[in-house]
Amino acid sequence: MLAPDDKLKFSPKPYLAATARFAAGTDSPREFLERCLADLAALEPKIGAFVHLGLDAARTAADQSSERWRAGKPISAIDGMPVGIKDIIETIDMPTEQGSPLFAGCRTERDAASVAALREAGAVIVGKTVTTEFAATEPRGTRNPHDLSRTPGGSSSGSAAAVASGMLSAALGTQVIGSTIRPASYCGCIGFKVSLGALNRGGSYDGLSQSCTGVLAATLDDAWQVAYEIAVRAGGDPGYPGLYGPARAPAPKPPQRVAFLETAGWSAAAKAAKQAMDDALAILKAAGIEIATRRSNNKVAAVESAIADARPLSMRLNCWESRWPLNSYRNRDAAKLSRVMLDRLAEAEAMSIDDYRKDLAQRDEVRRLYAGLAAECDVCIGLSAPAAAPSGLGSTGDPGCTVHASLIGMPAISLPVLQDEGLPLGLQITGFLNRDADAFAAAASIRALF
Amino acid sequence: MLAPDDKLKFSPKPYLAATARFAAGTDSPREFLERCLADLAALEPKIGAFVHLGLDAARTAADQSSERWRAGKPISAIDGMPVGIKDIIETIDMPTEQGSPLFAGCRTERDAASVAALREAGAVIVGKTVTTEFAATEPRGTRNPHDLSRTPGGSSSGSAAAVASGMLSAALGTQVIGSTIRPASYCGCIGFKVSLGALNRGGSYDGLSQSCTGVLAATLDDAWQVAYEIAVRAGGDPGYPGLYGPARAPAPKPPQRVAFLETAGWSAAAKAAKQAMDDALAILKAAGIEIATRRSNNKVAAVESAIADARPLSMRLNCWESRWPLNSYRNRDAAKLSRVMLDRLAEAEAMSIDDYRKDLAQRDEVRRLYAGLAAECDVCIGLSAPAAAPSGLGSTGDPGCTVHASLIGMPAISLPVLQDEGLPLGLQITGFLNRDADAFAAAASIRALF
Repeated sequence: MLAPDDKLKFSPKPYLAATARFAAGTDSPREFLERCLADLAALEPKIGAFVHLGLDAARTAADQSSERWRAGKPISAIDGMPVGIKDIIETIDMPTEQGSPLFAGCRTERDAASVAALREAGAVIVGKTVTTEFAATEPRGTRNPHDLSRTPGGSSSGSAAAVASGMLSAALGTQVIGSTIRPASYCGCIGFKVSLGALNRGGSYDGLSQSCTGVLAATLDDAWQVAYEIAVRAGGDPGYPGLYGPARAPAPKPPQRVAFLETAGWSAAAKAAKQAMDDALAILKAAGIEIATRRSNNKVAAVESAIADARPLSMRLNCWESRWPLNSYRNRDAAKLSRVMLDRLAEAEAMSIDDYRKDLAQRDEVRRLYAGLAAECDVCIGLSAPAAAPSGLGSTGDPGCTVHASLIGMPAISLPVLQDEGLPLGLQITGFLNRDADAFAAAASIRALF
Repeated sequence: MLAPDDKLKFSPKPYLAATARFAAGTDSPREFLERCLADLAALEPKIGAFVHLGLDAARTAADQSSERWRAGKPISAIDGMPVGIKDIIETIDMPTEQGSPLFAGCRTERDAASVAALREAGAVIVGKTVTTEFAATEPRGTRNPHDLSRTPGGSSSGSAAAVASGMLSAALGTQVIGSTIRPASYCGCIGFKVSLGALNRGGSYDGLSQSCTGVLAATLDDAWQVAYEIAVRAGGDPGYPGLYGPARAPAPKPPQRVAFLETAGWSAAAKAAKQAMDDALAILKAAGIEIATRRSNNKVAAVESAIADARPLSMRLNCWESRWPLNSYRNRDAAKLSRVMLDRLAEAEAMSIDDYRKDLAQRDEVRRLYAGLAAECDVCIGLSAPAAAPSGLGSTGDPGCTVHASLIGMPAISLPVLQDEGLPLGLQITGFLNRDADAFAAAASIRALF
């Protein structure tokens, strides 16, 4: 346990709520940014959320935004918002290192689609946030702001830690297993993993078929707005319709019925986490929301069975899909790859395309089954992680509660409303493909119950 | 017209057929390569097919392959094959310039998935071949080996010209509108555009939703083998099952019935090209193959109607999907983008995500309709281009005969069996999604009739 004087003090930085004062002239994006940077100066040396900072450019962008707000002509609702970019996503003015010494200092001379869209919307890019190696397993030292001896989760480690500790209003992450929802749960901020393909991954080094852009944010409103502003400017992945939904965060709408998904993470869940989940379900029931479970509903039970091995199935799919580029990286300099990456490559090289096709077919079947749940409930609910952030920085924690959402490709939202060991624990709302807005409306309604 | 003494002399370099002599010791990959390089030295100054050559590395790789064949242990059927790589596809040892001065000398320090697979199969990478700017419209000076005053087609200009003129056995291209089949038609080699997603595009700067890897090759056998060896090592695009089919080129199998697709290109077709197509259909009929046309078959007529505006629809889809990265490139240095790219970006910025969704829905409908043709015929047939390569180097020619295959995502093969103006003209065989092997078997059978 940390001594009390090791407890960091920080305050989240919701942005949309602050913009009314920009219009009124009593605050400005530049002043907002300076508050973030003051906290950043104090906290970053202890947390280690950033790989690279671009403070001069950020201040210049914030000044330009301040002028626009003063003139009553902001480009978008997130004009001036201080954001961070996970360091697997390209930025024209900062290196993109992918958490790997192979790419130390690597400059790709362009912005990723999401980053170009954020800049176009007036957002202020503060820096590149720490990612595990290639957004996979190997952590890179970021600490949890709530307890510096614990992991912030990963792979979007820096994005979650920076947002939760109020250094930024929002940050981009990605998720292929649990890399947005899990760190949001551990750090105590909003996590939003969009529907499969709903935000353009162009220029992001997360090409795996389950991978999706995620948003870490201080509030649901901020999270939605960031995703929306990207979608209308950069669309979804090529060939996908992109994020559907309104120009401002969907209004809260209470679900009539939710399905409680235990997921594979439940059996590993801490006693206090299970109790917190039970208490949450009681709160929903008291609000008149019906709960379907594996015990009360056959279709929920069938989905629970189908997602029981979501993690090994996802790992096999990721493994084959990672054969390249890992083979090219190993051929370049194997000494700069972690043991876990080299092992994954060896596993990939032992697989065949036929193995992969079988796994794809199994994933299709799980997706089909899950889509059927839409007739049974408005959204699903569950823990975002089996427990609070584990101690130590050697692992980013257990993805048992999140991997099914990546496998299925549905939208997932983590609400920072539960606790375990006195630390944050997320309540996860998952929806249905391309119905991100419905999931958001339900999440906003549930958020208000806590 | 060129004077006769301007006619280049060249001989294609089929590879698989030569390998029997490697095993026997009467030839070797190194000697094979030297024959290619001798022609390259004579022809390349006139044709301009390459942006970059890696001859030392190629000779080293060919020597290593020679040793493997001598030892009776080639890695694959294409071990030692001299290949070229379209310059939008990453190579670890050569720059990837994308036909753009923005990327002059740009080194990405890795191999693309297809290139890594080719190396792993023992293929010899000779160089990077000329592409139009960003594999789109603006030509970069390559000349047609059959008539230096004419375009080789594009965007895979260098790949087609180098293969047709015998500088290489095969080369990688890509196609999103007509960039593999059209240059194959103009240059007189095999072109093979695979089913949507059938070959992994990782590390290739052709992220558009219709874009596919293509193979230009001296023979059908060589084309199939290149695609097959990539597929088993790199798979398809993440989430796709990858190229299906046997470990050696599918044996010729005569189709019972083919559908003649006029496509939008027919109305623009040269008289001699139409006559060549009519003659080809007569040859098929004489071989006992039934021909369905828009006049004899309602489903063919419905498909013809649906693909009539395949080009504007494809251009709109490409346009929205090109908003990024063109916006990032323009912001970096607009002076290094062609007028046509700047215009495309302006058009993209005038589109909305809703426009794109409507176009996607229309494409889905065309795909659904085309899939129904599988009940009516084994493959479809048509011209690969409306005419021989046009004069001049300012345009890569009319894609009216090819764009429907890209829109639909079906496999397409161009056979160099027709002529117009005494120059090559391709006969195009198109199949059905993920049935590339069936299309190949039919194409091999049809090839033998000419």
